[in-house]
Amino acid sequence: MPGNTFGHSFRITTWGESHGKALGVTVDGVPAGLPLEPQMIQKELDRRRPGQSQVSTPRSESDSVEILSGIFEGKTTGTPISMMVWNKDARSSSYDNIKDVARPGHADYPYTEKYGIRDYRGGGRSSARETIGRVAAGAIAKEILAKYGIDVVAHVIALGTVCAKPLPLDMIKENLEKTPVRCADLEAAEKMLKEVEAAREEHESIGGMVEIIATGVPAGIGEPVFDKLDADIAKAMMGIGAVKAVEIGAGFEASHLKGSQMNDPFFMEGEKVVTSTNNAGGILGGLSTGMPIVCRTSVKPTPSISKPQQTVNLKEMKDTDITIQGRHDPTIPPRMVPVAEAMMALVIVDHMIRSGRIHPNSLLK
Amino acid sequence: MPGNTFGHSFRITTWGESHGKALGVTVDGVPAGLPLEPQMIQKELDRRRPGQSQVSTPRSESDSVEILSGIFEGKTTGTPISMMVWNKDARSSSYDNIKDVARPGHADYPYTEKYGIRDYRGGGRSSARETIGRVAAGAIAKEILAKYGIDVVAHVIALGTVCAKPLPLDMIKENLEKTPVRCADLEAAEKMLKEVEAAREEHESIGGMVEIIATGVPAGIGEPVFDKLDADIAKAMMGIGAVKAVEIGAGFEASHLKGSQMNDPFFMEGEKVVTSTNNAGGILGGLSTGMPIVCRTSVKPTPSISKPQQTVNLKEMKDTDITIQGRHDPTIPPRMVPVAEAMMALVIVDHMIRSGRIHPNSLLK
Amino acid sequence: MPGNTFGHSFRITTWGESHGKALGVTVDGVPAGLPLEPQMIQKELDRRRPGQSQVSTPRSESDSVEILSGIFEGKTTGTPISMMVWNKDARSSSYDNIKDVARPGHADYPYTEKYGIRDYRGGGRSSARETIGRVAAGAIAKEILAKYGIDVVAHVIALGTVCAKPLPLDMIKENLEKTPVRCADLEAAEKMLKEVEAAREEHESIGGMVEIIATGVPAGIGEPVFDKLDADIAKAMMGIGAVKAVEIGAGFEASHLKGSQMNDPFFMEGEKVVTSTNNAGGILGGLSTGMPIVCRTSVKPTPSISKPQQTVNLKEMKDTDITIQGRHDPTIPPRMVPVAEAMMALVIVDHMIRSGRIHPNSLLK
Amino acid sequence: MPGNTFGHSFRITTWGESHGKALGVTVDGVPAGLPLEPQMIQKELDRRRPGQSQVSTPRSESDSVEILSGIFEGKTTGTPISMMVWNKDARSSSYDNIKDVARPGHADYPYTEKYGIRDYRGGGRSSARETIGRVAAGAIAKEILAKYGIDVVAHVIALGTVCAKPLPLDMIKENLEKTPVRCADLEAAEKMLKEVEAAREEHESIGGMVEIIATGVPAGIGEPVFDKLDADIAKAMMGIGAVKAVEIGAGFEASHLKGSQMNDPFFMEGEKVVTSTNNAGGILGGLSTGMPIVCRTSVKPTPSISKPQQTVNLKEMKDTDITIQGRHDPTIPPRMVPVAEAMMALVIVDHMIRSGRIHPNSLLK
Repeated sequence: MPGNTFGHSFRITTWGESHGKALGVTVDGVPAGLPLEPQMIQKELDRRRPGQSQVSTPRSESDSVEILSGIFEGKTTGTPISMMVWNKDARSSSYDNIKDVARPGHADYPYTEKYGIRDYRGGGRSSARETIGRVAAGAIAKEILAKYGIDVVAHVIALGTVCAKPLPLDMIKENLEKTPVRCADLEAAEKMLKEVEAAREEHESIGGMVEIIATGVPAGIGEPVFDKLDADIAKAMMGIGAVKAVEIGAGFEASHLKGSQMNDPFFMEGEKVVTSTNNAGGILGGLSTGMPIVCRTSVKPTPSISKPQQTVNLKEMKDTDITIQGRHDPTIPPRMVPVAEAMMALVIVDHMIRSGRIHPNSLLK
Repeated sequence: MPGNTFGHSFRITTWGESHGKALGVTVDGVPAGLPLEPQMIQKELDRRRPGQSQVSTPRSESDSVEILSGIFEGKTTGTPISMMVWNKDARSSSYDNIKDVARPGHADYPYTEKYGIRDYRGGGRSSARETIGRVAAGAIAKEILAKYGIDVVAHVIALGTVCAKPLPLDMIKENLEKTPVRCADLEAAEKMLKEVEAAREEHESIGGMVEIIATGVPAGIGEPVFDKLDADIAKAMMGIGAVKAVEIGAGFEASHLKGSQMNDPFFMEGEKVVTSTNNAGGILGGLSTGMPIVCRTSVKPTPSISKPQQTVNLKEMKDTDITIQGRHDPTIPPRMVPVAEAMMALVIVDHMIRSGRIHPNSLLK
Repeated sequence: MPGNTFGHSFRITTWGESHGKALGVTVDGVPAGLPLEPQMIQKELDRRRPGQSQVSTPRSESDSVEILSGIFEGKTTGTPISMMVWNKDARSSSYDNIKDVARPGHADYPYTEKYGIRDYRGGGRSSARETIGRVAAGAIAKEILAKYGIDVVAHVIALGTVCAKPLPLDMIKENLEKTPVRCADLEAAEKMLKEVEAAREEHESIGGMVEIIATGVPAGIGEPVFDKLDADIAKAMMGIGAVKAVEIGAGFEASHLKGSQMNDPFFMEGEKVVTSTNNAGGILGGLSTGMPIVCRTSVKPTPSISKPQQTVNLKEMKDTDITIQGRHDPTIPPRMVPVAEAMMALVIVDHMIRSGRIHPNSLLK
Repeated sequence: MPGNTFGHSFRITTWGESHGKALGVTVDGVPAGLPLEPQMIQKELDRRRPGQSQVSTPRSESDSVEILSGIFEGKTTGTPISMMVWNKDARSSSYDNIKDVARPGHADYPYTEKYGIRDYRGGGRSSARETIGRVAAGAIAKEILAKYGIDVVAHVIALGTVCAKPLPLDMIKENLEKTPVRCADLEAAEKMLKEVEAAREEHESIGGMVEIIATGVPAGIGEPVFDKLDADIAKAMMGIGAVKAVEIGAGFEASHLKGSQMNDPFFMEGEKVVTSTNNAGGILGGLSTGMPIVCRTSVKPTPSISKPQQTVNLKEMKDTDITIQGRHDPTIPPRMVPVAEAMMALVIVDHMIRSGRIHPNSLLK
């Protein structure tokens, strides 16, 4: 079974390569009756697209979305929504020198083992451009969730050696887009920018951490046992290119706590059951508790660096060196923010439908 | 879509509650021709079962497996294998006092929100006894993988405040079962035992970390984009009851590294492409690299503690206190070891078949 | 991907062989709050079980169902329901002489090609006993559907050379169980019984037709394009052992009609949109119209006959003759009636949930 | 779960409406290394496209395929292949008068019930134009199957009151495209053409039958129990717009036969196990036997006729009359031939991969 489809009740299938003609997504399971304009998609693609700031690759793509189906008189009809963008600034010749060489930290070698051949231009299908489809689909998911009072926001909480200080949600939302690193702690953001700059000068790259928060999710969505809400979030996040770790709520810290420290006491807030702490990160036994869902991911440094590296030539099966040219992001987390939001929104809307909270066919019902 | 099925080409469906009649699993997609004896299943269930040591719950269950289908003359036939164990030592009366009360850290509240009713006895379906089916199915997965030179081992690397020191794989395997905490660093294991004992005396529980290592996995399994090998591992691990974080290879540490530190240089070892470090944890771009797959999970402390806790009565929708009785593990990681191994084995066997490395119908081909 | 699971939102997985220890099914996706007693399952298994009349095999099995999970205080909890029956009257020695020989009309040869080995006793997994799991699961589906005013009934409309005359639905329901052939036209039933008797005496078997009718299905369930309601019904019915053709509404007759004859005119009946004819069989464009769903299946004669037949020995790869012993049904349709009802009920309940007409988690909402 | 995806190991997702911007398909699971040129797709789309003859609608669409991804240097790479055609000759104004009226025999009414709104122009998603994606994907499936010696051909065997006489396979292939009705019995074809002409003059439409034959399928593909090869074929065929019945091999005739007449005797033909008759239609117990797979479908007359018909206005919920304008096929079977071939090819390639006969990742292995 191939792996380019995500979700069950709200199901997306992405396609396209970095240097192919176009990239896109088909979204199946969007309930009818949702007002949908291209601008709602475009604003998220604009947050994701390359060339937007000094912390992203200089590749210049407008990534203008075309919506090809599933909309009638400005509203979704319940049929599949196909969306695409054309590749315009592909410079494939930059990749000629690496066509037989496995770039360290990239999937070149296992792709070759799996398929026998690969499209080496710009990483082909394993390029970050693949996330265009995710972000476009996620934009629809967000529009639906907004109608149910659910909001998803992601932000950078660490970059290189700089960590942001914890901030309240409204300040995160307010500051998020004020700086190209998408860190709401503006002081930390300044330092992060400097680390990015330094890395670029050293022909290096740096990693970081992205936190994703979903508020307004009602209690009781998710499925017990295997399709737990946190299990699906973990899959969604670990399935983003450079992510190497995922935690929910107290996460890694949980391993050092005692039961009485970890457990979040329940109490009544008016008619509502809430907890006084949120070590659970909004999920218990795989089901949402009604508290904010909090997820953090660790993002490795961009594997493409222009320092010389040791590797192998896969055609000759010999040791060799490589110096990667081409245009690359010096760090991934800032541009990953809209992708992480999209994946979280996709998981939640899927489970909202699966749990009977959103009608699978129509918002008009 | 309900959530009690895991895997695609090798697919398991588990069933059963803590205080129901029985628990079990149906395993579909086991290729024909695998020699299979009950003892191969039982030995893994014995590692999982309660009452095996001072660090586990005193509930006494033999958990004797019955294989009901799919075997003919000692070999698998390619048809579904149904396995079950009977519940024998259920003491449901212990739970009468909590039937309307949401235990902190447990799924009682969201279960009630989701389903309207719940089997409150021993956690019902959200009990750790649910993992019986996973371990039984995982035992079959391990038998198959062994025929392909793939080995899966898990061990406790942290418990409470004690961390184990890194050890070579052969020593991990040798020491793993020497101590009830399943920590291969025997000195650390001693200290861990003491922390468990202390926690029990304080009516507390402690968390810890489990590391899972798979060796012998060939390069090129996994699916790009959504069904990445690491994404499926993350889902599998986060889907185990108390797990709050999952990392692959350098994991959380990756966020602090520079590109040249994180990237694992490739080189030729004879005919084989290998890397000199393994920060990738054996997975690049969602595909196996041929290096050992390394995953670590953070496990929260057992939520059931006998200290009084603040919570709500879900029937009366009022604040209340709870003191949990019943029989509980003071810490989860030691008994989670066979569960984590099972989940890793299930993911790998599924992807081995999906990637065409194991014939989907028959090992005789 | 293995094939022992059916349905998406209401999903069953069956297991077990004719001469294994037991057979059963796990039903995942049953909403919570459904009152469920073993007797509701048993009454359908009793209609299916062997030895019930002169038109069925003399194998004597009580097929007493055990419900092992998913029920608490007489109600479903939303967790998987595992059900099983033990095999008691297996006489495996009858099959020793055919273990290397491909029975004509049976799956022995392609099973051997697929799996390399097979459980030859009583057909193993391809035995009609496999349908025990379907009928048990279908009984739950029927209980749910009844709460929504949906009723499913099947009956024999042809057996051998005898065809039943069309009857109104209430007479079909009234007469259905009055005769062992399950034909509501009692005069035709008499003749059918004689044909069965004659076939048995000639060491022959006969085929027939089963019609399945579902009433009360609301308009608008089903999914357009591939998962059409009629497409899923066709799959469900063709997936029953001996079925060789499936038609909906006018079915084969439709190919000879003109547009104005085939199209069912719509008109208002009070507040309700109905059609004056039902050539569509209750389905247009893959979606239910609100009219009765009408499906007919053609069932081949039992392949096991005690006349000598020409075939091959699969071990020696040589031509040979076979005379099949063992206990067999002289005709399949009468015992297929409850199986066909079960499959129809399973398809409809699955699509009722998929289309948002039944809450996926709980009937209490 | 939405329904626009078909297949498991070879999985297609179609999108697009009759009067939207474009229609297309994403094909996931195409193994790497298949040489693929647009012309291979186009030739099948040309067989399907409207305006090709006097028996098809006069709507004029070139349906020129664009391949947007998944190909590199003329070969598939194992990544998703996205294909699309632009709609060019949509005349939406023809549909203004029917926007609130349920066309008899069409899905307008249940669509409205399901989604609340619908794109009424040309049938929207339930238009026959939706099959563009199927045919494009099927063309890839056929290319793969050809490499394994598997060939799929469909032809019209009945139209209106005219039935074709049985012909050998090579003559079917030779004559198939010689006449616009795609009936290999050229004498019958002449009569069929006249019936089509007569129907058009009477403002009527006629139905017919399409037979699909697949040769070269090895024994042992398919999955037992629910995902039987014939069950999946039945679903595939019944999922084509106007199909009302599906039969395999002897099909409906099987219900009248005796066991000794129905059973196909096995014998050895050299090293190969074959049968002397093929009442099974190449499938036993859901698995292929190695004999040709033979399937017949009954196709209803085009529901769009320009005779006045009785129906209801869905907005006013009142009885009314309708006279359908617009451009329509007077009969469906001739243009359904490439669609039926595509669906059969999709089912077979999916099961070839599922059964381990075609490598899921690469034809280069």
